[in-house]
Amino acid sequence: MAGEHSRSLLGEDKPKEACGVFGIYAPGQDVARITYYGLYALQHRGQESAGIAVSDGERITCRKGMGLVSEVFIEDTLEKLKGRMAFGHVRYTTDQDSIVENIEPQNFYYQQGMIAIGHNGNLTNSAVLRREMEQAGAVFQSTSDSELIISMIVRAGASDLISGILKTMEKIEGSYSLLLMTEKRMIGIRDPYGMRPLCLGRFGDGYVLASESCALDTVGAQFIRDVEPGEVVIIDEKGVTSLRPHQPHQKALCIFEFVYFARPDSVIDGLSVQKARYALGRELARENPLDADLVIPVPDSGTSSALAYATERGLPFSEGLMKNRYVGRTFIRPTQANRELGVRLKLNPIRDIIAGKRVIMIDDSIVRGTTSGRIVQMIRDAGAREVHLLVSSPPITHSCYYGIDTSGKGELIAATHCVDEIRQHIGADSLNYLSISGLQAAVAPICPEDICNACFCGDYPIQVSGDK
Amino acid sequence: MAGEHSRSLLGEDKPKEACGVFGIYAPGQDVARITYYGLYALQHRGQESAGIAVSDGERITCRKGMGLVSEVFIEDTLEKLKGRMAFGHVRYTTDQDSIVENIEPQNFYYQQGMIAIGHNGNLTNSAVLRREMEQAGAVFQSTSDSELIISMIVRAGASDLISGILKTMEKIEGSYSLLLMTEKRMIGIRDPYGMRPLCLGRFGDGYVLASESCALDTVGAQFIRDVEPGEVVIIDEKGVTSLRPHQPHQKALCIFEFVYFARPDSVIDGLSVQKARYALGRELARENPLDADLVIPVPDSGTSSALAYATERGLPFSEGLMKNRYVGRTFIRPTQANRELGVRLKLNPIRDIIAGKRVIMIDDSIVRGTTSGRIVQMIRDAGAREVHLLVSSPPITHSCYYGIDTSGKGELIAATHCVDEIRQHIGADSLNYLSISGLQAAVAPICPEDICNACFCGDYPIQVSGDK
Amino acid sequence: MAGEHSRSLLGEDKPKEACGVFGIYAPGQDVARITYYGLYALQHRGQESAGIAVSDGERITCRKGMGLVSEVFIEDTLEKLKGRMAFGHVRYTTDQDSIVENIEPQNFYYQQGMIAIGHNGNLTNSAVLRREMEQAGAVFQSTSDSELIISMIVRAGASDLISGILKTMEKIEGSYSLLLMTEKRMIGIRDPYGMRPLCLGRFGDGYVLASESCALDTVGAQFIRDVEPGEVVIIDEKGVTSLRPHQPHQKALCIFEFVYFARPDSVIDGLSVQKARYALGRELARENPLDADLVIPVPDSGTSSALAYATERGLPFSEGLMKNRYVGRTFIRPTQANRELGVRLKLNPIRDIIAGKRVIMIDDSIVRGTTSGRIVQMIRDAGAREVHLLVSSPPITHSCYYGIDTSGKGELIAATHCVDEIRQHIGADSLNYLSISGLQAAVAPICPEDICNACFCGDYPIQVSGDK
Amino acid sequence: MAGEHSRSLLGEDKPKEACGVFGIYAPGQDVARITYYGLYALQHRGQESAGIAVSDGERITCRKGMGLVSEVFIEDTLEKLKGRMAFGHVRYTTDQDSIVENIEPQNFYYQQGMIAIGHNGNLTNSAVLRREMEQAGAVFQSTSDSELIISMIVRAGASDLISGILKTMEKIEGSYSLLLMTEKRMIGIRDPYGMRPLCLGRFGDGYVLASESCALDTVGAQFIRDVEPGEVVIIDEKGVTSLRPHQPHQKALCIFEFVYFARPDSVIDGLSVQKARYALGRELARENPLDADLVIPVPDSGTSSALAYATERGLPFSEGLMKNRYVGRTFIRPTQANRELGVRLKLNPIRDIIAGKRVIMIDDSIVRGTTSGRIVQMIRDAGAREVHLLVSSPPITHSCYYGIDTSGKGELIAATHCVDEIRQHIGADSLNYLSISGLQAAVAPICPEDICNACFCGDYPIQVSGDK
Repeated sequence: MAGEHSRSLLGEDKPKEACGVFGIYAPGQDVARITYYGLYALQHRGQESAGIAVSDGERITCRKGMGLVSEVFIEDTLEKLKGRMAFGHVRYTTDQDSIVENIEPQNFYYQQGMIAIGHNGNLTNSAVLRREMEQAGAVFQSTSDSELIISMIVRAGASDLISGILKTMEKIEGSYSLLLMTEKRMIGIRDPYGMRPLCLGRFGDGYVLASESCALDTVGAQFIRDVEPGEVVIIDEKGVTSLRPHQPHQKALCIFEFVYFARPDSVIDGLSVQKARYALGRELARENPLDADLVIPVPDSGTSSALAYATERGLPFSEGLMKNRYVGRTFIRPTQANRELGVRLKLNPIRDIIAGKRVIMIDDSIVRGTTSGRIVQMIRDAGAREVHLLVSSPPITHSCYYGIDTSGKGELIAATHCVDEIRQHIGADSLNYLSISGLQAAVAPICPEDICNACFCGDYPIQVSGDK
Repeated sequence: MAGEHSRSLLGEDKPKEACGVFGIYAPGQDVARITYYGLYALQHRGQESAGIAVSDGERITCRKGMGLVSEVFIEDTLEKLKGRMAFGHVRYTTDQDSIVENIEPQNFYYQQGMIAIGHNGNLTNSAVLRREMEQAGAVFQSTSDSELIISMIVRAGASDLISGILKTMEKIEGSYSLLLMTEKRMIGIRDPYGMRPLCLGRFGDGYVLASESCALDTVGAQFIRDVEPGEVVIIDEKGVTSLRPHQPHQKALCIFEFVYFARPDSVIDGLSVQKARYALGRELARENPLDADLVIPVPDSGTSSALAYATERGLPFSEGLMKNRYVGRTFIRPTQANRELGVRLKLNPIRDIIAGKRVIMIDDSIVRGTTSGRIVQMIRDAGAREVHLLVSSPPITHSCYYGIDTSGKGELIAATHCVDEIRQHIGADSLNYLSISGLQAAVAPICPEDICNACFCGDYPIQVSGDK
Repeated sequence: MAGEHSRSLLGEDKPKEACGVFGIYAPGQDVARITYYGLYALQHRGQESAGIAVSDGERITCRKGMGLVSEVFIEDTLEKLKGRMAFGHVRYTTDQDSIVENIEPQNFYYQQGMIAIGHNGNLTNSAVLRREMEQAGAVFQSTSDSELIISMIVRAGASDLISGILKTMEKIEGSYSLLLMTEKRMIGIRDPYGMRPLCLGRFGDGYVLASESCALDTVGAQFIRDVEPGEVVIIDEKGVTSLRPHQPHQKALCIFEFVYFARPDSVIDGLSVQKARYALGRELARENPLDADLVIPVPDSGTSSALAYATERGLPFSEGLMKNRYVGRTFIRPTQANRELGVRLKLNPIRDIIAGKRVIMIDDSIVRGTTSGRIVQMIRDAGAREVHLLVSSPPITHSCYYGIDTSGKGELIAATHCVDEIRQHIGADSLNYLSISGLQAAVAPICPEDICNACFCGDYPIQVSGDK
Repeated sequence: MAGEHSRSLLGEDKPKEACGVFGIYAPGQDVARITYYGLYALQHRGQESAGIAVSDGERITCRKGMGLVSEVFIEDTLEKLKGRMAFGHVRYTTDQDSIVENIEPQNFYYQQGMIAIGHNGNLTNSAVLRREMEQAGAVFQSTSDSELIISMIVRAGASDLISGILKTMEKIEGSYSLLLMTEKRMIGIRDPYGMRPLCLGRFGDGYVLASESCALDTVGAQFIRDVEPGEVVIIDEKGVTSLRPHQPHQKALCIFEFVYFARPDSVIDGLSVQKARYALGRELARENPLDADLVIPVPDSGTSSALAYATERGLPFSEGLMKNRYVGRTFIRPTQANRELGVRLKLNPIRDIIAGKRVIMIDDSIVRGTTSGRIVQMIRDAGAREVHLLVSSPPITHSCYYGIDTSGKGELIAATHCVDEIRQHIGADSLNYLSISGLQAAVAPICPEDICNACFCGDYPIQVSGDK
């Protein structure tokens, strides 16, 4: 809820990530508490709800609620979640309803016992699959992909869960990094396109699965490797088993993990996010070698790129906008008459740094363009002589169907306006985006073919069912 | 939660009711708010959780939570629940887990749209049915009968909901007073034994269904009639349609509604609860014509019976125990060393009324016998010369499987002790229970054969599956 | 806050009590917890705020908040309040602001250390005294009498607190039952008129002071005696010391303690409240020997009087109105259009008891007359042929200045209307009040001269400063 | 409370600021809401409690509570705070008790009406003054300087508040930036040493006073000037009046505002905080021209200094430690056995940036030295070959008595250890602090004599009474 308010308050104009997952199999450890810390490290991936499910080998217990991890869990709740393995989920709603029934993990009873699920991603054929299941008599209590997936798995192989999973993977399309937990086993699955990240680590004698490696670092686990696209990782008393049931697809990792979502201290599919962001700034400098007195980032995500740009160009770099550390905690909204207050509550220009300067400002992306204009004006009001906006990713021209909330296509400013129109709208002296090839160069160790650029070019790796 | 604490605090030694339901179909009215008031009137039937589902004709929305009706709903929440019909549920857990997933109403998506359910009662063959459903591929998110019932209905007749309901009623056994709501219709069902009450009322041009008639009075609805055992009442834009699909069973109305559960201002199957309680006291007087200086009730439920007893016997009646009006609101438990404080926080004898007297104390029932002894001692400490305990119902010797929490048979003091042993345990000068025939006489307008006495005699009207 | 809402919701039309106090001096006992239980027993005297102060002999610590005792204190808070003595306060605002600064106990630092105060009553010359103090340089953080009293005590005798107290008692006028606590001593004071009750009990080797004896019973303390009007009781390691510094006034105990405020299980100045209420009904029967088919009380306070009336007149008594046990817990107010719902949420007539009957209804008092009319109508709607309202106290014609909120004189229906006008307003077939002499007879063991009847006759025992 | 937990959780090892104040005089504006936003911008100066007082010209109303500004105030509360002027306060406790009574603003009644106060600073002779006041009969409800100051003002000049203020300023010693508000006037006072900042701005036709200029920017006010040391600024319907009643002292502005406390986007006494921090890094580079592969800051406060150091030295700069944006919101503490987790939850090294490098890490200060060691180890574990710690301020060898919580002298690691011992304790390859002269050079536009360096050299500008 805090999240929702802060977003409307701040006119936040960024794509929204869907979810984060963290699981640990470590008998003898305080698995719920470790999961709490893991989710805490993944909080940036979803602020709307949080939940933790624990299995003691006989039974799965689950606690969850709306809000930040620290709001949902208190000492008392964690104390009661004892078991040999646990996994948790943080969530930001994309196209599903924001209702209590949708909070994950979701926990199910089926023929063989209990099974819990947590999901990061978005199925593209869920409407069709749901209709099929409903026609076969299924009922659903939520609108979540997770409930659909569990129904399919159980239907496909209740007596042999793994075979049910494999059959289900043949049918579901879209992006998914899943954690499943039965009483005895934890299972991690990454979709065949590897759209969303998922990695494996070691924790003492046990194992950890997490959306990002920063969660492994936080709990003190050692990174082993990324889960591979299409891979099913099964963790139980016998250790880790890996299945790769399907013919591999062309990989299609979401590029926005590097541009904006993931924490800089994470490493995804071998590439340091921080390094990728630095490289984005470097490419930006190569493509757009502007001259100016000062390079400033839009905090927090633009910092590395701005630093790279300044270094590459030999220009002075400085923090020119101060971000209120307590932002996102207010429930009091500015009145209609005072819209720009929303941005000022979040960001304040440092006049003494900016005044009289020709300023290059680096941002990571523009979705609707609502906030950028206010920031540019703020920089001008602080005395900048010129304001040049550089964006360390290409124009977003297409909606994402794979778990990212980039708003509907109609709201995407770059879908309906050319760059110069956007520049006028924002009021910048110049506006330049990074090219797709620049983007690909920046994440170079990852092959251009292995990346999903759909939001920049409309080249969707997975077809989307018409009515989804 | 308040409920749970108060129960442990107070050593409450009464059977626990499972649930209450209230539904209204009244386009143009503030149906959620009326449902709130209706639940408020039924709060005594369940204090653990509350929920309200609303349909606007297109879509069902549901809000629910742990706690009292007044704790779960605030003005804001009600404001958002707009529609043409609504129904609500208050719940006290019996044998199901106390988890968020079990809070009712439960809301489901199926082939034809949405359906919500609220349940008062307990199925006796749910374990068997659940297993059957699971073997056919069903998954469940809760341990509730309601989810099972919906799955069965949908499976049996997704394209024709009513036929699904009728088929499901052929299979499920046990007690149930159900409310179902689709986008367009509200459906009330009372099990073929009529174990739990359910009545129908008129509200302007619309209709109301409720567990007890007191809820109709509270919202200003007019009582029409009780829903009959085995009847299915369908309310939609065409008005009320009634189906009686099955050969009628021998009715078996739970006698405890009159002894303890229902509010005195309710009328169930034609009998005023208040009048029934008065008659219980009268029968008690006929069977046990004791002599004493004073008749006092154990508040609140014993009052009518005590008054009747005193009137019938020509003895002075007085309130001799004062009940703290704020009881049930504390979270601070007495320490182990100070157990009797639990009872004193709830009840305090009025010494000036009791001192030096031979006292007859009327209670409605004894389950485990833990509280009665403390109250008797309290009366003695207040100076009573003699304490005679009369119970306005027979000894509870058998557990209930139909939705009432009378504790396991091992905990029922009358299951393992004769009356004189119980008397000694309690420390009363005498102890007498009402006989079963006295009980039957008290509810006389209702035929003895139409009543479930199983908890007093073990004569269960519905067989219970072994493993439930 | 719960309190405020419930009052407006219910159209509660009763005088409001100001406060309750409970103190315990018992080194080695869990004094804060015992105080919690004591306040719990006194919760009926004030539902707006609650607080507990504890002294460990060196330092006073205080915790307090808005709401019921059970809402303000949780286990954690009590755990931290360790000491050798403690006292607490529950409060309902009368003419003072409902602000956090006014919550009691209030705790002060002065020359000799710390002193905490809790107050039940109302000073009549506080405005004058406050002005005097302010002219001498005092500043106040609240509008409470308590802060004024402490300032006066300290100013009058900072180096000798007791002499400061005695000097202050010479100046303050009005009603007050005070508890004071320094690091080492607890002091109880009852005003020279004895307007508000205060009693002394023994708890093991220690002592208890409380507004009502029911609190002593609840915590397991033994009643010793009432504190006398004008008496100062000092409890410390030397035991109990009593001072009676001033020439005794004519006592003027507030009669409303017996009519409505106090719990029936309390004994005040030697008279059982329950017995007094019974006697009120008996006197009502002597003065107004009506004939009817049924006598019913307005719950809860009218029960004893109604029972007495019925017994005295040989008429059938029954509970004819059912009170919702959960009343006072709702925050959802009925809409303007649906005013009578307010009463129905609280009270529901038992139709089967009332229908066709000539009903005598006994209430304890009428303040503004807003609720009575609705209840009479409700009884008629339930089928009563006649409704006769008997009030077990005289018409309230004058405001109270001594700590009871009877509303302003303009709002008192009996201040501006004769009995027959009130009857018409209410819609009863007849309306009769108890006479003042009947009231005096009912509390007979207490001398008529020792009672404050000001609200019935305007004969104020203490003059009120013009601008208070 | 969040604050307290986060501090213990994180082993935060920084000086603690005491308070922030924000006031606005602007009839016709939504002054409470503007104050809310102003406090939101000053939240970094105190997270323990927040409060807002409003005057409508007749009466002062105050709302306050424990927690962050956004936790204390909801829309409803702000709606009710209507007036022509308002001021607010955020607080972090230093040596006063963390009790409700100490939350500011504190609001007082005195002879002429009402007066509210909010304070940033710490009096050094309060114990003596308090004793004097108590001997003259004063009582206090809190241990705050504010209550003492108001008592003194009222005592010294109740009929002429301004003269009371001037007389009080003659007696009180220590640091104070005060806001006072009567029904008609707002008064800002900065102590004669100008220890704590306070500035004046214009808001439409009205005026604003704030601890830092960033709050003016946030609400859209224009900076006019800093309030001068010893100046009294009176704002009322006549506009702004300024008094400078006393012979000016040698100014002694707290240097830590530039080193750590103030927001970088604030300008204090003419110096941009951001620029000062940059200059600290530059001076550090001049004094300690180390060679390395990488310069990284300890976020957030070390960033500017690190950037300056890197630029000055021609070394690569990068963010090498990632800070969890959600830090400070957890209530779940790491167990004893897992202490370093506390730091890992807050900070995570970016291994790809650090591994194999000789790293220079810039921090702004070291108090107890508890956290620095863990961070150094973390950097080493991430593969750094060398870790050189540079501190952009001198060793803290003396406690602060002027409103900053630097812990007791015994806890200050630099009070008892030489730099090399600290280096060993921390485990760095080298450790260097900025010199006092370097510090003075960095804030150069401010005269060295005008700065309080007491915590670095023990040269206290104001004497401290022995028993404070």
